[in-house]
Amino acid sequence: MISFASDYITGAHPKVLQRLLESNTEVLPGYGTDKYCAAAADKIRAACGNNRLDVFFLSGGTQANAVIIATMLAPYQGAVAAITGHINAHEAGAVEYTGHKVLPLPHHQGKIAPAELYAYLEDFYADANHDHMVYPGLVYISHPTEYGTLYSKAELTALAEICRRYKIPLFMDGARLAYALASYDADVTLTDIATLCDAFYIGGTKAGALCGEAVVFKPEFTPPGFITMTKQHGAMLAKGRLLGVQFDALFTDGLYLEIGRHAIAMAEQLKQALCEAGCRFLLNSPTNQQFIILENAKLAELQQHVAVSFWEKVDDNHSAVRLATCWSTTPEDIAALRQYL
Amino acid sequence: MISFASDYITGAHPKVLQRLLESNTEVLPGYGTDKYCAAAADKIRAACGNNRLDVFFLSGGTQANAVIIATMLAPYQGAVAAITGHINAHEAGAVEYTGHKVLPLPHHQGKIAPAELYAYLEDFYADANHDHMVYPGLVYISHPTEYGTLYSKAELTALAEICRRYKIPLFMDGARLAYALASYDADVTLTDIATLCDAFYIGGTKAGALCGEAVVFKPEFTPPGFITMTKQHGAMLAKGRLLGVQFDALFTDGLYLEIGRHAIAMAEQLKQALCEAGCRFLLNSPTNQQFIILENAKLAELQQHVAVSFWEKVDDNHSAVRLATCWSTTPEDIAALRQYL
Amino acid sequence: MISFASDYITGAHPKVLQRLLESNTEVLPGYGTDKYCAAAADKIRAACGNNRLDVFFLSGGTQANAVIIATMLAPYQGAVAAITGHINAHEAGAVEYTGHKVLPLPHHQGKIAPAELYAYLEDFYADANHDHMVYPGLVYISHPTEYGTLYSKAELTALAEICRRYKIPLFMDGARLAYALASYDADVTLTDIATLCDAFYIGGTKAGALCGEAVVFKPEFTPPGFITMTKQHGAMLAKGRLLGVQFDALFTDGLYLEIGRHAIAMAEQLKQALCEAGCRFLLNSPTNQQFIILENAKLAELQQHVAVSFWEKVDDNHSAVRLATCWSTTPEDIAALRQYL
Amino acid sequence: MISFASDYITGAHPKVLQRLLESNTEVLPGYGTDKYCAAAADKIRAACGNNRLDVFFLSGGTQANAVIIATMLAPYQGAVAAITGHINAHEAGAVEYTGHKVLPLPHHQGKIAPAELYAYLEDFYADANHDHMVYPGLVYISHPTEYGTLYSKAELTALAEICRRYKIPLFMDGARLAYALASYDADVTLTDIATLCDAFYIGGTKAGALCGEAVVFKPEFTPPGFITMTKQHGAMLAKGRLLGVQFDALFTDGLYLEIGRHAIAMAEQLKQALCEAGCRFLLNSPTNQQFIILENAKLAELQQHVAVSFWEKVDDNHSAVRLATCWSTTPEDIAALRQYL
Repeated sequence: MISFASDYITGAHPKVLQRLLESNTEVLPGYGTDKYCAAAADKIRAACGNNRLDVFFLSGGTQANAVIIATMLAPYQGAVAAITGHINAHEAGAVEYTGHKVLPLPHHQGKIAPAELYAYLEDFYADANHDHMVYPGLVYISHPTEYGTLYSKAELTALAEICRRYKIPLFMDGARLAYALASYDADVTLTDIATLCDAFYIGGTKAGALCGEAVVFKPEFTPPGFITMTKQHGAMLAKGRLLGVQFDALFTDGLYLEIGRHAIAMAEQLKQALCEAGCRFLLNSPTNQQFIILENAKLAELQQHVAVSFWEKVDDNHSAVRLATCWSTTPEDIAALRQYL
Repeated sequence: MISFASDYITGAHPKVLQRLLESNTEVLPGYGTDKYCAAAADKIRAACGNNRLDVFFLSGGTQANAVIIATMLAPYQGAVAAITGHINAHEAGAVEYTGHKVLPLPHHQGKIAPAELYAYLEDFYADANHDHMVYPGLVYISHPTEYGTLYSKAELTALAEICRRYKIPLFMDGARLAYALASYDADVTLTDIATLCDAFYIGGTKAGALCGEAVVFKPEFTPPGFITMTKQHGAMLAKGRLLGVQFDALFTDGLYLEIGRHAIAMAEQLKQALCEAGCRFLLNSPTNQQFIILENAKLAELQQHVAVSFWEKVDDNHSAVRLATCWSTTPEDIAALRQYL
Repeated sequence: MISFASDYITGAHPKVLQRLLESNTEVLPGYGTDKYCAAAADKIRAACGNNRLDVFFLSGGTQANAVIIATMLAPYQGAVAAITGHINAHEAGAVEYTGHKVLPLPHHQGKIAPAELYAYLEDFYADANHDHMVYPGLVYISHPTEYGTLYSKAELTALAEICRRYKIPLFMDGARLAYALASYDADVTLTDIATLCDAFYIGGTKAGALCGEAVVFKPEFTPPGFITMTKQHGAMLAKGRLLGVQFDALFTDGLYLEIGRHAIAMAEQLKQALCEAGCRFLLNSPTNQQFIILENAKLAELQQHVAVSFWEKVDDNHSAVRLATCWSTTPEDIAALRQYL
Repeated sequence: MISFASDYITGAHPKVLQRLLESNTEVLPGYGTDKYCAAAADKIRAACGNNRLDVFFLSGGTQANAVIIATMLAPYQGAVAAITGHINAHEAGAVEYTGHKVLPLPHHQGKIAPAELYAYLEDFYADANHDHMVYPGLVYISHPTEYGTLYSKAELTALAEICRRYKIPLFMDGARLAYALASYDADVTLTDIATLCDAFYIGGTKAGALCGEAVVFKPEFTPPGFITMTKQHGAMLAKGRLLGVQFDALFTDGLYLEIGRHAIAMAEQLKQALCEAGCRFLLNSPTNQQFIILENAKLAELQQHVAVSFWEKVDDNHSAVRLATCWSTTPEDIAALRQYL
């Protein structure tokens, strides 16, 4: 059965796996102090155009979100996020488990609107009782969003300016950042992100690694004691090399972008196939996740042959489903899909 | 430079790596629902002699300890442990971060004494003010301990009986369980452990995997909502296959025990080399970690050629250091070491 | 200056204060084990018509909400509440601080609609990914609500039935319960509440006590270790008598209801005065809190003479404000107010 | 029956109660913003000889300890305390519930030794692995200690110097501070404490108030967002006046010291009575708590007539018990006691 169920359906990109093989018997120190972690961090700093950045490697996305948010916030602060933000809906309360509220804003195809963020912050501080409320302590955005959409450079700049005005950091969840950077609509570079965001992470798990996310802080935003807190959250691997080697591979010879580009190219073919079959799109996504609306009967039939993800109920007879591409998607997969549409 | 610094100095055992390679392009569902996780769980149940056990895969040891303890305890309960227990000393307060106190007992070469556990529990309930104190909610032991020592079957049985009497679960941290099972002094089998302990984990990271620990519960002790709570703790990998495939390999054709046996054989050679060189041992460890006391000058000289772990200060002129073996230790490593002793 | 700013603007009802005076030099044991706490609990059980109920005394409302919710929920569960619920908006993230998400539902003048609760629960369990989401672990309602409105017996029964169907407890925040019970629109008795809710608290602070809330559980819902957990939350007073004596007074000779009735009678006079002055009401509240909409200029003028609470911005020129009555409100206060309207 | 069971066996000192009565019908704003809280804070600042201090009022001792420690520490830090410290043993894990470890040092009649604190801190930072351990984030001392003993000015100065050297704050639990200040052995004034400690609290509950502790911070140590965090911990009373009025009374005309002096005078009479009866003391306490060792049979007999507190088991036939004096202890109580000794 062919699968477009997600971008984590297969293992690692062959080049990533190759590096794990090659380095397997090397003797290395533990807990992220090995030379591969150092090299990967250097390459990420270079790709971001800022050699002062702090880079850490954690093993997964929920973990990265929870650790970053918990360590950047004071106890009386919460994380402002789109109501559809992954941290608000699909992470089992991982942020709240660390003691912090998610402060939801309306979403626009997964994005928060600068004007609404601004109004929220203005109103918060205008309220004479705000001492009895959770303070907005950082702004969380995902890029691409959970709906596959992208912030423009103008939008990202507006959000960053509002955050600076209110002295709260801007944090980007880049679990699928490869697909934002490689999108044909990409308006924002990695350098832009490293300039406009105060913290972000570069997702590995959903972009060709077996596991791992590279967390990047502007140094003035790196939480003191961050290493100790990753240990405390159970987010530090004894064989830290597993993350270092993979990110070293991903940031060698542009592999990370190459993986993004391949998936985007496949997503464009996918879109075309879906269009040609007359599918109705839930929205226009310029990244590797495509969302279509199907009659339930049609969906049941399709799922006999093709794995897709249920996304949400549209009405009693229709469902929205997600199809995703990744490093391992092939033109043959798309061709096979066409016959079932 | 040769290294006995730890049992996580190299990557995965070749057979584990091979299985990752072979399965890399297979399309599999995420979050631990793949067939490898299922197969690995079945093989672990078989190895434990109890097909009713619940098995879950987490990515690291600190995480496994924190998640198991946090999910088994009620908020008013703490974890009884040897004062030297890893959770009490070297996990950055990961247990306390989840809101629970570690209740320390004296240690005897890393072990807790059944009589002292019994006396502690008796005294706790005899105290009229125990409602103002943290209730003992589980007993944590490590096997091998942090000092490489082992519980005998009689000791483990005594601990289990006390726990049952007081209706609190017995939890074993088996981060290095391979070396307990393969020790020439082993008195306790995996089946014994699965019978006497209510929860335990089988360590992968320190026994030939890249990462991963297999958490085992007697079903009546499996915390409701455990899957959701692993997500909440950031302990669930999207590519859960990474853990499933590795544990499937470790529990195929006795590889886990084979890895243990190899490291124990190397540890016996190591011990002999250390003995012959007249080294003074901190204690007699029957597992893969050996602890010796060296003059500081001698240690500095040794570290020019051999990586070892500083363990503790003995006096102003002497230090205790740890030397560990693992799947990748060779007789050549021991031979090389001899010349520097 | 006259004040309708809140129902905690003055000290204790004279009869409550009198009992504190009379009992002041009695020697009593600490931590809630004194005879007044026991007597107060008995009287509350009698007033609830169920002598099996468990009753505890905590010092404040935010504390009662946080302690009850934190101790009733498992770590993977959250509290379903109206988006306007006090715990969601005005308690500084006290619930999230204990690690639990507030799961907001739409509000209807502060109330949740049974049909919407039902749909939410149905959808939650229908979602194949609900293991990655926070489980609904209890339903929080306030009665009166933050808008002064009341649940009817039919509504409360419907909510209770849905909760039972989904096996989650129904918890009522009764910080202002006196005013619900004494309202001319009251459709729900204390016995009804004790039958339909699984946990609730009877507010003292806002109904004539200096401090204190009486927490009531059906015994099958009392969290094991509750006493220890109140200590852990810093919610246990050494001189527990302070709470026991006050609640003993409040539940002697119907004082609690008497306080409610007085405030309701004053609220009716207040309403009439506001009506006669042509004030526009934000909504129709049958309890001790009245909400009116004023032009900002008019409000500024009124506040020269009368203390009221800003409630919310209505538009650029209008604000909603709250006026509350309590045990100490007098007809003279209302008369004085009339001249400034 | 006469009682020496604790210093919270009776209500409030008559002058405190009187002020509650007098102010009862005054209209005041809530949540600690009233004029009595302001006046009490001013008087405390004056008594401390430093008008820059920040003063807050919380309702109880466990709460004060937990809130202060949780808000002063970063998540990767713990509180260093004597192993006998109240926070380590008798507060139901309230500190750990906030996510922080208590780091125990040996005790010397309840006190920590400066040399041992110094050695601990030196060793901590000397350990190459301290990133995997809980950082010492503040030093907690109680004065008087749980054993009624006092720090000398030299000891307190030594502790403060070590704390400054390591840049960690020194925090004093003054639940019974009145008795330290009034002790015939008192070597440390309130001004000394306000100079040498970075945070401390002045206990009301155990020194003549119904409830309440006054928390004092040097301004550079006041945690940002402290008000919001007291709300979040459920530590803020709506009728904050209850605390303000009481502390205003306690710090008017030297009442706090007067209460201390009375209890100390009674304790001296008590000591003499115990001496004359040939009682064996557990240790020499210069404050209001006296500890004696009794044969169990003798204790049982005594408890027929006199309430005392069991402290600890000495051996199979002997127990240590505590007798405490307070504002309400009378010479008649001592005289009555004599006949049962």
